[in-house]
Parts: sequence; structure tokens; C-alpha cells
Amino acid sequence: MNGADLVLSTLKASGVDVCFANPGTSEMHFVSALDRVEGIRPVLGLFEGVVTGAADGYGRMADKPAVTLLHLGPGFANGMANLHNGRRAGSPVVNIVGDHATYHRHLDAPLTSDIEGMAATVSKWVRVASRPEALATDVADAVTASLDGPRGNATLILPADIAWNDAQGQVTAALPPQTRTASEAAVRAAAEALRGASKPVLYVGGRGLRRRGLEAAARVAAVTGARVVMPTFAGRLERGAGLVEAERLIYFGEMAQAQLIGTDLMVLVGVKPPVSFFAYPGKPSELDPEGVGRVTLATEGEDETEALEQLADLLGAPRLAALERDPRKTLMRPEAPTGALTIQTLGQAIAATLPEGAIVSDESATGGAALYPLTAGCPPHDWLFLTGGSIGQGLPVAAGAAVACPDRKVVCVHGDGGAMYTLQALWTMAREKLDVVTVIIANRAYAILNVEMVRTGAPPGPKAAPLFDLTNPTLEWTALARGMGVEAFRATTAEELVAALRTAMATRGPVLIEAVIA
Amino acid sequence: MNGADLVLSTLKASGVDVCFANPGTSEMHFVSALDRVEGIRPVLGLFEGVVTGAADGYGRMADKPAVTLLHLGPGFANGMANLHNGRRAGSPVVNIVGDHATYHRHLDAPLTSDIEGMAATVSKWVRVASRPEALATDVADAVTASLDGPRGNATLILPADIAWNDAQGQVTAALPPQTRTASEAAVRAAAEALRGASKPVLYVGGRGLRRRGLEAAARVAAVTGARVVMPTFAGRLERGAGLVEAERLIYFGEMAQAQLIGTDLMVLVGVKPPVSFFAYPGKPSELDPEGVGRVTLATEGEDETEALEQLADLLGAPRLAALERDPRKTLMRPEAPTGALTIQTLGQAIAATLPEGAIVSDESATGGAALYPLTAGCPPHDWLFLTGGSIGQGLPVAAGAAVACPDRKVVCVHGDGGAMYTLQALWTMAREKLDVVTVIIANRAYAILNVEMVRTGAPPGPKAAPLFDLTNPTLEWTALARGMGVEAFRATTAEELVAALRTAMATRGPVLIEAVIA
Repeated sequence: MNGADLVLSTLKASGVDVCFANPGTSEMHFVSALDRVEGIRPVLGLFEGVVTGAADGYGRMADKPAVTLLHLGPGFANGMANLHNGRRAGSPVVNIVGDHATYHRHLDAPLTSDIEGMAATVSKWVRVASRPEALATDVADAVTASLDGPRGNATLILPADIAWNDAQGQVTAALPPQTRTASEAAVRAAAEALRGASKPVLYVGGRGLRRRGLEAAARVAAVTGARVVMPTFAGRLERGAGLVEAERLIYFGEMAQAQLIGTDLMVLVGVKPPVSFFAYPGKPSELDPEGVGRVTLATEGEDETEALEQLADLLGAPRLAALERDPRKTLMRPEAPTGALTIQTLGQAIAATLPEGAIVSDESATGGAALYPLTAGCPPHDWLFLTGGSIGQGLPVAAGAAVACPDRKVVCVHGDGGAMYTLQALWTMAREKLDVVTVIIANRAYAILNVEMVRTGAPPGPKAAPLFDLTNPTLEWTALARGMGVEAFRATTAEELVAALRTAMATRGPVLIEAVIA
Repeated sequence: MNGADLVLSTLKASGVDVCFANPGTSEMHFVSALDRVEGIRPVLGLFEGVVTGAADGYGRMADKPAVTLLHLGPGFANGMANLHNGRRAGSPVVNIVGDHATYHRHLDAPLTSDIEGMAATVSKWVRVASRPEALATDVADAVTASLDGPRGNATLILPADIAWNDAQGQVTAALPPQTRTASEAAVRAAAEALRGASKPVLYVGGRGLRRRGLEAAARVAAVTGARVVMPTFAGRLERGAGLVEAERLIYFGEMAQAQLIGTDLMVLVGVKPPVSFFAYPGKPSELDPEGVGRVTLATEGEDETEALEQLADLLGAPRLAALERDPRKTLMRPEAPTGALTIQTLGQAIAATLPEGAIVSDESATGGAALYPLTAGCPPHDWLFLTGGSIGQGLPVAAGAAVACPDRKVVCVHGDGGAMYTLQALWTMAREKLDVVTVIIANRAYAILNVEMVRTGAPPGPKAAPLFDLTNPTLEWTALARGMGVEAFRATTAEELVAALRTAMATRGPVLIEAVIA
């Protein structure tokens, strides 16, 4: 057994069974070990941003880490933006980054770089493997770290000689992460504060946005009059008919601020106080009212659901079924639209065709403005948001979610500008026959930047405007998709989009629809 | 004048006139200033690896920096791999990275990250702008740093409020970089060592690989019997008919070692001693013979050409025209090939059609094995190599070189695996009507990894093999190119490739040829 075998065996023993990979020469012994150690499925991405974004999507849905395999510093760098997004989503991910052999590093060969320095910027845990026999501990620690407390990226740097040398270490399994429960004092303080508040908000994030957490939040709301609010972007939200809906904070700061006017108490559940996405001259960064009371029920990394249930019980809230008004959403969705393809009819078309159990990977940006509210009453589904603001997340996350949940339809709704960052994900979808319907919203612009430019007070002039414009030339998404082996349709009317969606929803395997909106 | 205006005015005053950009909200004031400050051309890339790779290609050809505009940490991260390559190429690049307003950072909004930590890993100079009135100094220092000593990346982090606040600073121009000349003692020591050596090598890198440096090296060689050897990968090499040819170090370590057997002296000119690209079990990392004498004529960042000319003069070497044997390459190139399209006929086809003054951006990897030697006697041209080993450099470098040299034909020869990393560069070529002929060598594999896997001693098994295989599905490069507005041809025979190359060489503007090799 060499070091690479020990790494893979320990991963397997720790419950990891998928490896998203873009390997190079320094990872050849790891790759070779994939053929000797049973039970780890390699999935190739043709760019590292696909690899790490897929691991993020996988982690959100599987609630356990996949392992990524990355090629030295530059390979890690290519994956960093989606590791940043994944960190913001609270996704557990284990990264294995190959490096030069330990005795080769000081020679400064061309691929040498400061991998530790890079890894530190997006990882909660970083270690450089230094002895083959310690690799079982290294890997088990990485798996545990990815899941423990606030979930995140655990990065193990694996020099080539540590992988290829004989390893005497015993295979071990990762320890299960510690359960971190909110303190009784925190639950009591939240209850106390809620009793004394006139317009409280339960601000819920993390895994509090699953069915159970939201149901407990609704019980609290029923007896305290609190609103249940969620951040604009969250790792994973369970929603739809039969689930409790949380009010989503509006993206633009001044609107979010208006949304929270009059609030006298923010109860924070697994999330920091709300702040605007960007700062703007003369506008506030903090969005809850000045002087608002803030109480933390659960910190990031503590069990939000448990804390909410304890709070509901302490407040004497009735069980969900016993509430006067059932807070669960009724099944209700729009008819299939006709006519021009607009932001509105695009949202209607997807809402009209979304199957039960769908997983929506949403990087729809401005073009998705109608989609989110219109799908609120669709059959139950999961919603995965662009969490860290780094565009180019939606396609890889969709691919990873499809690997994690092969029996569910994944629907990726993506702005055309953002989709260009990691379009190579389409190839992985084709190779792995992933059941993903991708809708590219072709508004042919970085539309959000046109909005933001106006908000700076200066409308774009002749040199600025082309920087937001994706025509000249126009991207042909059907050609790009077919070039990577994905079947593709173009829709220019609502009827065409509905027809293409119906076909795609009824088919297994990847399909891309370019929705050209007016 | 606000901070952004002062930044752009200082860039312009310092000789910077191209901005490769992928902006976001935090850069809106910079973008807005592009319309107020004359003389800076913005070029949009749809992914940051395109932006930074283009700046690298531009810097190699223009011998001055372009500025990149990047969006916070994740935008910088997406550009890091090609900044790594650019650093290894000795390219001068100024990066401006927008960040949150200074008072917004501590709130940890979703896009917040440790930009300084990231920047430090690939930059020779990093500064966070802290006062609008100091921006002229900040920018001028960045431009100077990019050019001074070993050229490289100078990264200025620009918080949004520093850009949007009023700036009272005076516009200044960057100081010209210090001239760094090799010491007289170093020249004397090299001459001394060469006189005493029986099998010396002049190992020349950096800007010593331009016409003048190579001619001086040839003069030294003529009187000392030294071989003139260059690294396997260099930022820019001037070569072809009428120029002095340097012997290129072979990629695979054991072959490079054989190439240098018997050498008793390495004279290092702007380059470190030769080391293998990767380490392999039981094989040496250092490639020159054990016990070889090493003398440094010029360190990295010192003027290699000046040092070589001083050395030639000190050795009493005749002027080039007076040498007994003219060391300059004779014009000579292969006939247009016929028959099957192979690595050999592909090299012949390009060599037969390469126009005078071409700039070759070479990321041909295994498929280009015949191309480099076959083009040695072509009309004079520049050769830009993949310098840092991070694949996905060739297309962006070609785009940047075409921006720098609009009157020269750029020929990008690229492996299909590597080209997928930054294929978005094709769109920039189309938008800017860049005169680039791209040849994608479609061997439909990470072919080098098949070789490397065998070199590890383990042939790829059923799980490893698909990780090197780019079929299933097969990439259709003609579709990918057309999807981004670039005209495309597919060639499956030598005749088809020659015909497509002739058409492309005779046309202005971007063309892609997918060369499917047997």
C-alpha cells in the first residue's frame, strides 16, 4: 500500500464515495489508486471551477463531502472561486491538492507556488501531508473538519512523494463531527426577547432552511407574531407546497432596509445580521434598523433546527397541525404562458413545468426575478442559490447535485453572462448522463451591471457600455451545448419554452434550452 | 476628479493604454472613469483567466504592462492561474482588483475574502489603496514594480470608496524602471570559467532570447565552443531564418539529463539552473551533471543582452558578420504535406504556411512535438511558450499578443484539453476582430497524462483511463467556436489542414481550425 492507496481507503472508510477530479502529473499515483481501492467514483471536469462547484452542489444535497482532486497551486486557484461560493453555502468539501515531491519544491520548477497561502483564503482547515504513515489521520481529520461546526472546505496538500512512498498506516474512519447545540441560555434569551418585542424577525439561515427548521420557525411565529425571514442567498432551501415559506430578504440594500423597517428585534438563527451585498455611497451597509435588538439563538455551525424546536417548545407553541392557521404553502402554480418570452413568462413556464422533487440550481440573476416567487407553490423542491456572489456557480452546482441525487430532476436556471465562466460543466453533464435541464436566460448582457451603473449615478458611456453587453458577437448557446455533447433547443416565445421544457422534463439526461428573452 | 479618474489618468500618464477587464459592481466607478479619461482601450473577457492571460501575452509583446480590472477576491482567483504563468514568463502586468468599501469589509458580506492573501501568492508587489489622494503614487509604483528587475505582477487592491471619493492627488507618471546590469565581476568570472571549461553551456533565458542576446551568445559560443541552450519553456523567443537558434532543453527530465551529459560548466544568463518539470521516483530533479561548475552571468532581472554582449567583447569574439561560420539560421521550410493528419504532417502544414512576422502562441503539448523543430527555418517570428505549466494559457496569450501587435498574424496552436480551460478567449477574439488563427490539435485526450501514467509504472486501469480521455462525448470545436462568433473549419487530412491554413493566413480576423489528428 502506498500513500495514495491509504488516502483513498481512508476516504472510503469515512463515507466519501465521489471524487470530482482534474488531475495532472503530480496526481498520477492518486489516479492509479482509484483502480485499486473499491468504491470511489471519479467524475472528470474539464476545468477546476467545474470540479469544485460540483463538489459544492454535491455537499449541499448529500450532506457529506465529495473529494476534489486538483493539480498544484494553479489547479487549486482555478477552483477557488467556487470554493469561495461553497464556503458561503456551508458545503462540506475535502480538497486534495497534489504538489511537487517534498525534495523538489525548493528548486522552484515552473509549477511551484504557495499552495498553502492560496488554500488558507478559502479553507477552514489546511494541512500539508508530511509522512505517508500519517495520511490516514490527515484524511480522517479533513473529512471531520469539513463537517464539523460551520461546514466548509478542508484542504489537504499532498506532495507527490508522500503519495507514492510506501505507507504503513492503518486505515481509519473519520470521527463523526461534534453535535453543536445552541445553549439553553441562548434559547431562553431568545424566548425572553421575543416576548418583549412588538415587531420581531426570526432571521434563519444554514440548515434551518430545511422542512423541520422552517416548521419550528412557523410555530415560533404563530405564538410571537415574528416574521420568518431568510437571507437573499442560502445554500439550500426546502420549499414548495406543503412546506413553510420564509420571506426572502430583497437583494438591493435600500429595498431590504424598507422590508425591515419597524423591526425591533432580530433573532439570528445560524446566520450573521443582514448586510447589503455591496456598499454604495451614502447608503447604509447594515440593513436592520438602527438600534434594533439582536439576539443570537444559534451561531453559524450550531444546530439551527434543534434550536428552533427548543425555542418553539419553550414558548409553548402548539404542534404544527394544531396551529390555528396552517402555515404550509398550498399547491398552486401558474398556467403555461403564451406570447412573448419575458422575465415574467419565463418564470411562469418553469413554474408550470417544475416536477415534484426537483432541485433548482439558481443563478438566474436579473432574468430570474419572476421565477422565484412564481415557483413558491410548486410541488416540493429544493432551491440552491448563488451563495458567494462569484458568478459561474450554477452549472457546476447542478452537476454535483445530480451526482448526489440521481433520481431527482435538476433544473439549472442561469444567466448567460455567468454561465460562460464554467460552461465546461455541460461536458461533464453529457459524459455522466446527468439528469439536468439547463435554461440559459439569454438577455445578452451583464444586465445587473447596467442596473448597478445607473445606481452609481453615472449611466454607461460609449466605452463603459460595451463592457456590459454580450452581443457583438452574440453567444449561440445551442452551438456551445452541442459542442460539448448536450442536446439543445432555442426558445424565443413562451410557447416554445414551454414545449422545450415539457420535452426536457420528460427526458432523462442533460438538455439545454436557450431562452432568448425580450 | 474622483479616485477612479486619478487611477486611470496615472495609468495613461505612465504609458498604459489597454485595460483587459471583467468588472463587477465594486468596479463601476472605474468603468465609469473609462469614459472620462482619454486613451485607455477596454477589452472585455468573459472569464478572468482570459483577462489575465491576455495581459500576459500583451506584456510579452509590448514590453510594457496592460492593466487588468478584476472583481474582488473570486475574480482575482479566476485570473490567478494565468498570472502564475505570466509571472513565469516575466510579463509586466498591473492588476487592479476592486474590493468592498473600507467600512463595509468587516461586515463579511458574501463576496468578502482575503484578496491580499491571494494576491501575495502570484504578485511581486501588492498594495491596498487606503487614501484617494495617494492613488497616483500607488498606481505609478505599481507600473514601475511590474517592469523593474524581474518583471511580474503588481497588484493594487482598490476599495470601492477609495475609487468613488474625491481625490486631490496630482497625476504622476511612473518612474522608468532601474536598469540592472550584471556586474563587471560577474562578466569576468564567466569569461574566466569559459576559458577553463572543456564542454561549457550558455544557459540563456529571459530577454536574452531576443535577436540581440542570441547573437551575442553565438559570438561567445564561436570563441569558447559553448553550446547555447534555452529552457524548455520561455516567455518569448525570437527565432527563424536570419536569427541565431538556441538548443531547447528537452521536456522529459531523463532526456534533458542525457542532453547535458559531459557538460562541465553552466553559465546562467537570466535563469536558474535547469530542473525537471516534475519529480519522479528514483530520478534526479536537477538536470545538469552532478559536480558541474555553475557561474551566474546575469541574475533574473538583470539585463541578459547587455551581459552577453559584454562577455563576447571581453572574450574578444569577432562581430557576428566576421565569424568564420555564420550562426544564423538559413530560410528553409517543409513542403505542404499530403495524406493523413498526424503530429508530423500537422507540424509540416503550419511550418509551410507560417507568415513572416508571425507570433506563435504555443500550447500544443504532445501534439506539437514536430511543430517546433519544423518551424526553425521559417521566416522570422516570435514564439510564446506555456511558461508556468498551468494549461489554458495559449488562447488568452494569443488574444493579448494580437492586441499588442495588430499588424502581425498570431498563430495559436493548442491542445484540445488545455484549450477548454479558457475557451472564452475565442469570444474576445471575435469581438475585437483579433487577427488570430487558432489550430486546435484534437487528439481528444489529456495525452501527456497517458504518457506520465505509464512513466509512474502503472498503466491506467478502467477508472483511471477515462480521466485522460476527452471522447464520450467528443468535443466539437467548430461548434464551440461558432457559438462564440469565430469562423471555424475542421481538417481531417493534411490537405484539408493546409487549405484551411492558407485561407486563414490570407484572411484578417479570427479563425479556428480543428485539426483532428490520427
